[in-house]
Amino acid sequence: MFNKICVLGCGLIGSSLLRAIDKKKLAKEISAFDKSKDVSAYLVKNFSFNIAKSAEEAVKDSDLVIISSPLSSYKEILLSMKSSLKKNVILTDTGSAKKEVNKVISNLNLDGVNWIASHPIAGTEFSGPEAGFAELFENRWCILSADKSISKDEISKLEKFWSDLGSKVKLMSFEQHDYVLSLTSHLPHAVAYSIVKTAINDDDKFKNDIIQYSAGGLRDFTRIAASDPLMWRDIFIDNSENILKVLNDYSNNLDEIKTAIENKDGEKLMKIFSSTKKVRKEIIKAGQDTEKPGFGRK
Amino acid sequence: MFNKICVLGCGLIGSSLLRAIDKKKLAKEISAFDKSKDVSAYLVKNFSFNIAKSAEEAVKDSDLVIISSPLSSYKEILLSMKSSLKKNVILTDTGSAKKEVNKVISNLNLDGVNWIASHPIAGTEFSGPEAGFAELFENRWCILSADKSISKDEISKLEKFWSDLGSKVKLMSFEQHDYVLSLTSHLPHAVAYSIVKTAINDDDKFKNDIIQYSAGGLRDFTRIAASDPLMWRDIFIDNSENILKVLNDYSNNLDEIKTAIENKDGEKLMKIFSSTKKVRKEIIKAGQDTEKPGFGRK
Repeated sequence: MFNKICVLGCGLIGSSLLRAIDKKKLAKEISAFDKSKDVSAYLVKNFSFNIAKSAEEAVKDSDLVIISSPLSSYKEILLSMKSSLKKNVILTDTGSAKKEVNKVISNLNLDGVNWIASHPIAGTEFSGPEAGFAELFENRWCILSADKSISKDEISKLEKFWSDLGSKVKLMSFEQHDYVLSLTSHLPHAVAYSIVKTAINDDDKFKNDIIQYSAGGLRDFTRIAASDPLMWRDIFIDNSENILKVLNDYSNNLDEIKTAIENKDGEKLMKIFSSTKKVRKEIIKAGQDTEKPGFGRK
Repeated sequence: MFNKICVLGCGLIGSSLLRAIDKKKLAKEISAFDKSKDVSAYLVKNFSFNIAKSAEEAVKDSDLVIISSPLSSYKEILLSMKSSLKKNVILTDTGSAKKEVNKVISNLNLDGVNWIASHPIAGTEFSGPEAGFAELFENRWCILSADKSISKDEISKLEKFWSDLGSKVKLMSFEQHDYVLSLTSHLPHAVAYSIVKTAINDDDKFKNDIIQYSAGGLRDFTRIAASDPLMWRDIFIDNSENILKVLNDYSNNLDEIKTAIENKDGEKLMKIFSSTKKVRKEIIKAGQDTEKPGFGRK
């Protein structure tokens, strides 16, 4: 158990953390800060612990500091509060890309700070503190990454924290994290945005029909394409190297389908479509989705 | 109510129709045929009505004949049974593409046959008769298309049939159907196959990690990419003209994201990602998906 935990940035993820830490009593003291006045007002109204006026104030005496704001805000936050960090604090985050952020933090040469990145693979298509809930991390993966200089004891403390929230924890290098996530998360988001942009066009006279009959596939993509734009802008810029590489591989695979359609090459299409069928079973076997038809939608 | 209804092709859709027709007592007599011996054996075991030995035998005396087999099989089926069709029969189908099939049927110059195409926008990622269920069509759209020569009375009879199954019915031209579906269903499937093929590669040493952490977006696509390969091969070949056009538009939209990432153009990315966010609300407002986070997955 930590004496004091501080959460900086209190949207969907940050507010869910606050709710879970509070509910499960994982700290004697909790503090939180969000630079948005609206979010702050929401926090004051809905939580009984200290909502700080600044990141500097929030981090004071905290044993665990969690940055849960967009990637592009890390540097400013760190500069504003680094001199107030408690000696031997564990500093973590909840960001979806790691390599660039790790560079930013390394360049600050923080002394007496145990920087261990966290990435809870949890979230919904909604954003903001009112969308958060304490159970968000239950039975979800959380990936931790740290330099070799960080002691195993400190990593174990953070592992325990995520386990207490109900998550399954995995250690990965910063580089491996960014590669794996470029395929499992970042590519799917780029694709979802593109497809929704292609299909739903205000100038299309059949727009209403396209929305009406979206159950044939399109609606699955609109969920992902509804995610927080600012968060995703930052991910695409931070992990651009991996994302551009996998986008190229993806375009080649799409071109293969295109060519098969142009040539009316049924054999080739059968081969492509059959190869992806078995993947669903592997996803379900790994406990990563429900086997109920249509995600169990009612 | 029809005197006799015949279903040709008894996979997910055909067997669901049989179950629903039986349960809701929409015909005095039901007959069914499937050219697969395994499927036939399943039907004999699980249904009490007549499982015919041929399409020709099945359609005899039927007032409504429903072809529910892959698009590429229509011609053979029609040639084998057209001379056995009852005078003034309603002939329909459940296929996902219409224009080419309509050509095939027009070229056969069927006399005394009311050809009205049906497309129930219903289905799951599973296939085969054991995956079917009577409620599949409830609260789902069914699109009908017919030439102007078909009388309103006959169309009304078929509309009533689908309404009785719980569907909402909409009339559309063959061409409009194929265009709308190329965006709402066919493009999403092409994209899903490509992304799953890109992300899950047996040669990738991180393959297990990619499956393990697929909840960040990828898993949503694996559902669609698990659909019946043969059915989709036929759709891509039949509706190739529309699909190739929308795939080109899609590639252009993807290239726009790629260029913005290459240029680290945050403003452009924000603009793209914000534009797709509102679509989700329109889909939910149109009753086409649940507003629960993550499709309401448990």
